[in-house]
This record gives sequence, structure tokens and C-alpha cells, in this order.
Amino acid sequence: MSSQQYSPGLENVIAATSSICTLDLERHVIVLRGYNLVELATKTTYEDVAYLTLYGHLPNRREYMEFTSRLREYRDIPKEVVEILEKMSRDSHPLLMMKAAVATLAAYDPELEDNSLEANFRKAERIIAKLATVTAAAYNIPNGRGYIRPKNDLPHTSNLFYMITGREPNDLEARIFEQSFTMYIEHELAVSTFAARVVASSMTDMYGAVISALAALKGPLHGRANEMAAKMIIEISSPENAEKYIQRILDRRERVMGFGHRVYRRGIDPRAEKCREMLKELSDAKGSNYYEIVERVVEIMQAKKNLYPNVDFYIGPLYHLLGIPIELYTPIFAASRIAGWTAHIAEQQANNRLFRPRARYEGPRDLKFIPLDERE
Amino acid sequence: MSSQQYSPGLENVIAATSSICTLDLERHVIVLRGYNLVELATKTTYEDVAYLTLYGHLPNRREYMEFTSRLREYRDIPKEVVEILEKMSRDSHPLLMMKAAVATLAAYDPELEDNSLEANFRKAERIIAKLATVTAAAYNIPNGRGYIRPKNDLPHTSNLFYMITGREPNDLEARIFEQSFTMYIEHELAVSTFAARVVASSMTDMYGAVISALAALKGPLHGRANEMAAKMIIEISSPENAEKYIQRILDRRERVMGFGHRVYRRGIDPRAEKCREMLKELSDAKGSNYYEIVERVVEIMQAKKNLYPNVDFYIGPLYHLLGIPIELYTPIFAASRIAGWTAHIAEQQANNRLFRPRARYEGPRDLKFIPLDERE
Repeated sequence: MSSQQYSPGLENVIAATSSICTLDLERHVIVLRGYNLVELATKTTYEDVAYLTLYGHLPNRREYMEFTSRLREYRDIPKEVVEILEKMSRDSHPLLMMKAAVATLAAYDPELEDNSLEANFRKAERIIAKLATVTAAAYNIPNGRGYIRPKNDLPHTSNLFYMITGREPNDLEARIFEQSFTMYIEHELAVSTFAARVVASSMTDMYGAVISALAALKGPLHGRANEMAAKMIIEISSPENAEKYIQRILDRRERVMGFGHRVYRRGIDPRAEKCREMLKELSDAKGSNYYEIVERVVEIMQAKKNLYPNVDFYIGPLYHLLGIPIELYTPIFAASRIAGWTAHIAEQQANNRLFRPRARYEGPRDLKFIPLDERE
Repeated sequence: MSSQQYSPGLENVIAATSSICTLDLERHVIVLRGYNLVELATKTTYEDVAYLTLYGHLPNRREYMEFTSRLREYRDIPKEVVEILEKMSRDSHPLLMMKAAVATLAAYDPELEDNSLEANFRKAERIIAKLATVTAAAYNIPNGRGYIRPKNDLPHTSNLFYMITGREPNDLEARIFEQSFTMYIEHELAVSTFAARVVASSMTDMYGAVISALAALKGPLHGRANEMAAKMIIEISSPENAEKYIQRILDRRERVMGFGHRVYRRGIDPRAEKCREMLKELSDAKGSNYYEIVERVVEIMQAKKNLYPNVDFYIGPLYHLLGIPIELYTPIFAASRIAGWTAHIAEQQANNRLFRPRARYEGPRDLKFIPLDERE
């Protein structure tokens, strides 16, 4: 152990083998179960990609019909879970409410303690379906809008849009929301996914591993970038203000959220380019200047810091144009990524090895204990 | 990255530097902030060791008085959290209830989003104090005993004993419960602690990282061994039955819980010997044969498998002799380890690097997408 190099944050350390996803940096492609994730997100439905993520192959038409119909059936949540959300403090962040809701939902899953691959798949489907409902409820309930029931005649993402905004999306909104949502579905060992695998390796239940992923996602170094990007674009409000605004952040030696990435570093996030096109289309349709502001900020960041935007930088303003409340951007990320998380949990537990690394000790040794009454 | 060796479960990989604790395998000592953990657990109070774990030095008398008085003051939990526990399904595992309770408590902490070291220390104290109350409530409420309020005139562990059993411990019980409880306080990068650090590295709030540790602890590969050890000793019921019982487990190629350890492997767990003495003392005092049964099982396991017992193997039967319900053994582990978890979270966030390892991809590449309506 002592001869081994220590890499803070396990940067570049291989912590698992996986057949789910890899970030192919040479070719700028996110490979999901063998397919190009960006192509999938723009060519098919969230349900299709979720099935692929979980089961490892694209569904045939019968499998697709059965899968989507099960997801619709699982959408609703027990009234006790709704009541618990109603009891929680009014000013809770939606992700806190979601953690409490998932902790509670666990108790209602009849297969909670069965970690076989088959049971994990069935639980994953229930959690994927219900987490969308929980996402909307975690905003609606504390904001006095009550529990909005899912509509079972809508596809997964249109139903989520409906539960959040109170109205069904038009065709353009539905397409852009679904495509950008699906971009988030899976991204290898992001800290939330890694946390889910670490926790799952104790052979605890899937819900516990999902809660850990939600907890990690709440951290500003992981999930909150889309919220902060939206706030920044709103504050900048016009392309002319961009330079002064960004310079002020850089002068304070703070990070401009939505730029750079541990794995892509200074390179391109393959999801970003497509989301840029969507932002242009939606900005035009809505008569907004967000696309111009974003373009200007990207230019400035490239000139000043040589950094490229990541997917969050586009999705923040995109969701704002869709009329989605900012505090829901990270919860929505979770509602998509849940397919990746549950796939990783199932994969981990199907071929498990407990995570139990070591720490390099830098503290004292051989101190002599002094009883309390002999201390000063 | 590709040249690097992959160690499943990060076995023997250094994943963090820490000044909190190390397992010194050469000298069979658990070093906690420079002191011998087993010596601490048998010579002083839980509060003293918790202060040391969190702050890195033993408190002087004034610091000790102030610390214990703050812990007493923080013990009670908001009535909304009690009501949420009342709403949860009757047959929930206490650890599920604890996760939901901690998720809810987060919303009541005024410093939730402040991850400075000072704020983290203050939150840690509140969580250490309240988790004992939550532990007892997670058993009392679903078992129809209602919410038993903490007694602020009792020390930490005697109050926990009181909330669980409904009576104050006698001197022998109080000493043995406190000493064995304190043995659990910290143990380097166990999977729960590692999970807490991974989640904390996103700079999420301390409560989220604690929930993740609770989730990991619920897994049978980590926290449940004390429960299973107790059940086994009860089932064996007499030393003469031990050999047949153990042989049956081995014939089924199952693990005998409470033996062996990832880090100690086939060596001695330094906590076990002291807990063995306590079990002898308590068995004698209560007129129980648990000590004889345990001794017999240890003999058999050494002969047949060359494995030593770990701390859980003694604490399970010990707690049963103390009249503690079996489903609380792992929650009690959590109520002790919380000091270690919060210390690790504070240490991680004070000098943070996001955990973001890589996965070795073993799936397909370059698959061609086929639209749904062209599939069979």
C-alpha cells in the first residue's frame, strides 16, 4: 500500500469496471451501451434510452410497449409520502424533499431487500417512474400548489413537464425538453454515480444508494451548475453586459459555473453542441436574447480562460425559457440520471466487491492518554 | 489511466489522506487522533472520545463541560420529524426511518448550507446529539411506544439506553454499554465513512453525507454483522450445539458473520479482545451462557477456517444481554460512528477534492442506432 501513488479525488484512478458508459475523449463521444448518447437523445425517446441504459440493449417494439406501460403504471406515489412532503419545512430545497421522499418510498417497495439482478431491474423501473413524480411534488407541495397527480396518457418527459408547469408542452417544447433531459441520463462515474456504487457495494437496498446519489448531486461541485448558469444569464440580461459581468467573477477569483469539466478538462462536452442548437431554436421561437448572451459568454470564456462550456451551461437557460422554476433544474437532472444510477447499482450488485479503500494517516501516534480530571 | 492497475473495491488503494484514524496492523492498534482507541473506550466517556474525534485533541475540563452541555441541549428533535416517523410504514427497518429523519432534520438546521469548518463542527455536534434520539425513536415509534423524549440529566450513552429500554441502566450496564458503544466510534475508511467522504466532496451539506453513510451501514456487508451474530448465538442456545450449527453454515458455503475483516483479514480486531472480557463479565452477572457459546464458536472457527472474530461478534450478544432489541444494533453502531462520520466530512470539506474516478469500459462500441419502428 505504501508504495502506491495517491491521487486526490481518485482522479484518473479506475474504481470500477462497467459496461454502461464511457467518455471517449479521443473521438468526443459519450458511448452509452455502445451507442452515441447525443445521437440517442436527439433521435429517440427518454423511455427508449432508459431501457437501453438499464438492460444493455435497445428494446424491440413489444419490450418498448411493455416498458413504457409499466412506467406509466408506477408513476403515482403513496399518499403517506405526499403527506410527509407536506409536513416538511416550507423552505426546504427540493433535493432535500426528494431524499426524504425516496427514503420513505423504500418502505413501500415489496422487493426492497431483494438485491438479485431481476429484482433490482424491477425496483429500478419503479424508482425511475416515481422519481419524476417526486421531482414535481418537491416543488409543487412547498409552493402551495398541492400534489399534482401524474397524467398516465402522456410520455415520461411530457408528463414531468405537465406536473411541473401545470400545462402540457407544445410540440417544440416537448421535443426540446425531452432531448435535453435525455442528455443527462448517464455519464459514467460522476460523483453521484460513484457514490451510488460505493453505497450499493455494502449490499444495501437500491433506494439507499439512490439517496446517496441525490445527496451528492445537491453539492455545488456536481449538480447545481445548471441552476447557476441560468441565474447568471438572467442577471447578465443583455449581451453587452456579459464582459463586465464575467470579468467581475474572474477578478474575485471565483468559478464561472458551466465551464470546464474534470474529465473533459479544457475540451468539448459532446452534449453541449447539440444543446446549443436547441437553445438557438428555442430562443428564436420565444423571442429571447438568451442565445446571444450565452454565445457572448462562451466567446469571453474562451478568450480569457481557454475553457469550453459544458452541457449545464446551455440547459440552465434552456429550462428557463421553458418556464421551469430554477430550483428544479438539479432535481430534473436527477429525474433523468436515475436511469444511469439504477443501472450502475444493479451492475455493481450483480458482481460485487465491497468498496473499502485505505486512508494515508497524517496524524500523530503514541500519544499518552490523560484522564479528564488530570487535564487543566 | 490505462497503464494503471485496477483493484476491485479499491482494496489497498489510498483514497484520502486523514489525520483522524489509522489501523496499525503491525502493532494491532487502532490509532484515533494519536491515541489507542481501545484504551480510550475503556478509560473515558463517549463524549470525551467524540470531542477528540471531531476536534483532534482531548478537551480540557472547561471544553468538556461546554461540549457535553451543548450535546444535552441539542438532543430533542422537532415535532414535525416525530410526526414524519409516525407516518412511515409500520414495518420499516429502523435505518430506513433514520434516513428519513436525518433528511428531514436537515431542513431545520440554520447552518445547513454553510460548509465552513466552524459551521461543520457546530452541525456535527447537533447531529451527534440528535442521532441518538432518532435511533431510539426509529424503534419506539413503529413499535407503538410513542416518542420517548431524551433525559437531559443523563450522560449521552445512558440517555440512549434509557430511551431504548425505558429504564436507566445500572452501573455495570452503563459502563459496559458505554465502553462497547465507544468502540464503534471511528474506524478509518469503512464503506460508510468512505461513502460520506465521497458525497461530501461534492460540497453538499453534512446531512446528505450522513444519510449516505447510514445507507451504506444498512448493507449486510458492513453494518448488520452484530445483529446476525446475536441471532446466531440465540439460535445456538448452548455450547454443545455450536459445532453442528457452524458446520451447517459452512456446508452451505455461507459466511459466518462476525469473523474476518477486509483490513484485519485473518488477524485480530483490537476491539474484540476487550469486548470479549465485557461479555464474560456481563454473562456472569446475568447468569447467561452466551460467553461459553461465543468461546466455543470462536474455537471452531479458528480450527475450521483460521478466522478471528471481529468486534461485532461480541457486541451482538452483549447488547442482547443488555436487553436491547436486535433490530437496533446496527442503528446503535450508527449512533456511535456518527462522530467519526462527521469528523471525516468536516476534514474532507476543509481540504476538498471532488471524487471523480474513472470506470474501465467493457461494453460494446460503434453500434448503429436503429429507430424504434424499424426494430422487430
